[in-house]
Amino acid sequence: MERIDGGVTAAQGFQAACAAAGIKYEKRVDMAMLYSTVPCICAGTFTTNIVKAAPVVWDQKIVKEVGSAQAVVVNAGIANACTGSEGMKCCEETARAAAEELSISADTVLVASTGVIGMGLPMEKIKAGIRMMKPLLCDTIEAGTAASKAIMTTDTHNKEIAVSFTVGGKTVTLGGMCKGSGMIHPNMCTMLGFLTTDLAIDRELLQEALSEDIKDTFNMVTVDGDTSTNDTVLLLANGLAGNPKITEKNQDYYEFVKALRTVDEFLAKSMAADGEGATKLFEVNVIHAQDKAQAVTLAKSVASSSLVKTMVYGNDANCGRIFCAMGYSGEQFDPKKVDLYIESKEKGKLKLAENGMVLKFSEELAKEILSAKEVTAIADVKAGDACATAWGCDLTHGYIDINADYRS
Amino acid sequence: MERIDGGVTAAQGFQAACAAAGIKYEKRVDMAMLYSTVPCICAGTFTTNIVKAAPVVWDQKIVKEVGSAQAVVVNAGIANACTGSEGMKCCEETARAAAEELSISADTVLVASTGVIGMGLPMEKIKAGIRMMKPLLCDTIEAGTAASKAIMTTDTHNKEIAVSFTVGGKTVTLGGMCKGSGMIHPNMCTMLGFLTTDLAIDRELLQEALSEDIKDTFNMVTVDGDTSTNDTVLLLANGLAGNPKITEKNQDYYEFVKALRTVDEFLAKSMAADGEGATKLFEVNVIHAQDKAQAVTLAKSVASSSLVKTMVYGNDANCGRIFCAMGYSGEQFDPKKVDLYIESKEKGKLKLAENGMVLKFSEELAKEILSAKEVTAIADVKAGDACATAWGCDLTHGYIDINADYRS
Repeated sequence: MERIDGGVTAAQGFQAACAAAGIKYEKRVDMAMLYSTVPCICAGTFTTNIVKAAPVVWDQKIVKEVGSAQAVVVNAGIANACTGSEGMKCCEETARAAAEELSISADTVLVASTGVIGMGLPMEKIKAGIRMMKPLLCDTIEAGTAASKAIMTTDTHNKEIAVSFTVGGKTVTLGGMCKGSGMIHPNMCTMLGFLTTDLAIDRELLQEALSEDIKDTFNMVTVDGDTSTNDTVLLLANGLAGNPKITEKNQDYYEFVKALRTVDEFLAKSMAADGEGATKLFEVNVIHAQDKAQAVTLAKSVASSSLVKTMVYGNDANCGRIFCAMGYSGEQFDPKKVDLYIESKEKGKLKLAENGMVLKFSEELAKEILSAKEVTAIADVKAGDACATAWGCDLTHGYIDINADYRS
Repeated sequence: MERIDGGVTAAQGFQAACAAAGIKYEKRVDMAMLYSTVPCICAGTFTTNIVKAAPVVWDQKIVKEVGSAQAVVVNAGIANACTGSEGMKCCEETARAAAEELSISADTVLVASTGVIGMGLPMEKIKAGIRMMKPLLCDTIEAGTAASKAIMTTDTHNKEIAVSFTVGGKTVTLGGMCKGSGMIHPNMCTMLGFLTTDLAIDRELLQEALSEDIKDTFNMVTVDGDTSTNDTVLLLANGLAGNPKITEKNQDYYEFVKALRTVDEFLAKSMAADGEGATKLFEVNVIHAQDKAQAVTLAKSVASSSLVKTMVYGNDANCGRIFCAMGYSGEQFDPKKVDLYIESKEKGKLKLAENGMVLKFSEELAKEILSAKEVTAIADVKAGDACATAWGCDLTHGYIDINADYRS
């Protein structure tokens, strides 16, 4: 497997376009469209929030009942959530408008929205945007990159990646893009993520690979503990690579799973590092846990703690807060066994606590480690062989600024 | 029942003193001692955090195994948590030093600490503090107030209250003080709270009244979602009011329960309003819920949401965030039935959403309501008769400032 340039248009047969439709933002692109020249099978994972945005309901139905798709229409600025039956009508109208332009069936058009909750979509602008994008559809790397920029809200940069790998002598490509910066605490799924591949694979296996992978990638990200109403990851596979179709969990399947992990982990970490107001990526490794569930809960509890996140912002190794966040996670463990470390690539690793007791460590070195752009905290629970990694960011003045004045 | 002046020294036989022991802060009082001229029965509730500070372990043992106490020694600045067996030794030495000064048994001395986790207590300073405080013990209102100031950490003001009520023709007094501003998200219990009464009552009933009451008071407060290692509420009753001893759940018992609710609710709300960096009290009422558990979970989820809290700070009625926080709470409910309101005493009530859909409301009035010092959000779930109230505060630049630089 190797990393290659591009994102959602890297795989064969996938095109993208974007437009400045003036939905909520002025003078910036705010709509994107993805299109595959041939029908794709599709897999999806969606928010577990009881309050689901209309596009989530629309896509869930297509993924479950239709199982194939050929286009995705995305808008940034308005989430189309808490909009009742009007919101569902907007999804249908959007799909119909795209279907008409693309000469495909409306039930193969997926839709996604992100932005303010509770506002209605301006349908005339959406439809005009679709008409604008149709003739711009293009399979270049640049077209994919432009689409990844169009779906941003409070993100400070776009997030995309592509990899290629070999299946049955054929080169297969997998690319993806995502957006997400605030209201990020995925549970079963996440923000908006779009993955495209030219792999030939059974639909059930595609869904299983995605569902399993997000548990260790997107679901391990937290920015602010708020699980969105719109979280969606869609994975489209059009089979154009010409590989022998994957129909069982053979070596080819695991080759794909490895590529999927690379892509999703990259996108998940990018999202955490670009959390609203964040100045750094904060990774939490829990090692030697009793089982996976314990490792996951402990890692997410530390990465989610407001006090830990402000401590990371302040470069202050106040590691009692890490113990505290592990302790209230709901998991049973022996705090008297826990060792804590912090680590950065540039400055190495420093032990802060041993067997539950805070050590006398070099405050200077601790501050240097915490000042890096990527900081890791490691908790050794000494209870077994399981481990988990969660990704978050620091809690800063920027987060307050962005969210105290979001709609204005 | 009537509200009277004072706090922990309001009830007969209770004395307090404080001292500037120089434990961590300079030039301020940082230790307090409570003393009852006669032995008390005692009840307590403690943190559910697996990582329990040494004083919590010490007090739990006394409340459970001894059941009576005559003094409490409290220090601010260092939490005595994650300090291993050394920490337990500090509790014992503190209790012994106080016991010697007061000529009582060491196993009737409760201890409590609050402050930085992981640092050891400077025992010579603690013992010197106890020696300083002994001759200052006094039953005046001022002595109680001074004690309530001595236990503050990042609190911006002290928190105390007292009420009197009548039991069997005798006037009974109940007073209390608490501290708490950050790392506040009590679960089964809370921060540090000390309640004193001259009521005569069975110990089991005293504990039951306290355990029940905190569910609706201290446990409904959240500042930052971080459940502390040190949360402790202690309730001492010395019987000096001379009322016929309460031994069953009769009218007298419920009179006491009512007084306890008044005191605890006042202290709980004071804590939320004085949350680290807070500019206002944020109350969340969930009404017409299916059952109490549902109402509690929904109310706490809204009060805990970083996005709702920043919205309250920014006076921005972005009520989709309230729906979102209810939706990811883990409770099942029908979002299509939910009505949302905001309310302040000065500006009245405004409906923001009906049957799950955001309405067109007056943004100007919404801003005026949210600008009040005490703001309430009301969610009508229309599923039954249960209700719950949670108290929180806004998330502000002040919170970041305080916590990015706590130890320095």
